[in-house]
Amino acid sequence: FAVGVSCRCLRTPSTFIHPRQFKRLEIIPLGAHCRQTEILITLKNDRTVCANPNAKWIKNVIERVIPKDNQKVQE
Amino acid sequence: FAVGVSCRCLRTPSTFIHPRQFKRLEIIPLGAHCRQTEILITLKNDRTVCANPNAKWIKNVIERVIPKDNQKVQE
Repeated sequence: FAVGVSCRCLRTPSTFIHPRQFKRLEIIPLGAHCRQTEILITLKNDRTVCANPNAKWIKNVIERVIPKDNQKVQE
Repeated sequence: FAVGVSCRCLRTPSTFIHPRQFKRLEIIPLGAHCRQTEILITLKNDRTVCANPNAKWIKNVIERVIPKDNQKVQE
C-alpha cells in the first residue's frame, strides 16, 4: 500500500514487542509529511522498529508504560 | 525533587499542550538510567518540552493521536 514519501515507516508490523525491550517509543502524529500516525520503537539494542498504530497491544503497552494517575512519582 | 542523573526531564509540568502542536511524542520507560517514565514532546517549532506522565491530559492526547482500532488507516 502507498504511504507518503516522508513517512518513516514503510512497514508497520503488528508483531508484539515486550515493553521490557523498549528504550524509547515515539509517536509521530499524522500530518502533511505523512498521512498516517507512526509509532517507532527503539529497542534496547538500539534497533528501531515500526509498530502498527492500529494494533491493540500498542495501546496496552502504552497504558502500561505510563504510570497510573494515582501512582505518584517522586514529588 | 531529586531525579536520576540521566533523566532527560528536570521538570515535568502538567500544562496542557494541544496535539496539533506536536511533531513527535516520545515515551521513555523508566529504567536504570532514570527512575521515572519520561514523556518528551517535540513541538512543531522544534522545541522539546517534557510532560508529566501522571497528567490526565497526556493519556487522552495519546488516545486521540493513536487511531482507534476500528478506524483502518489506508490499507
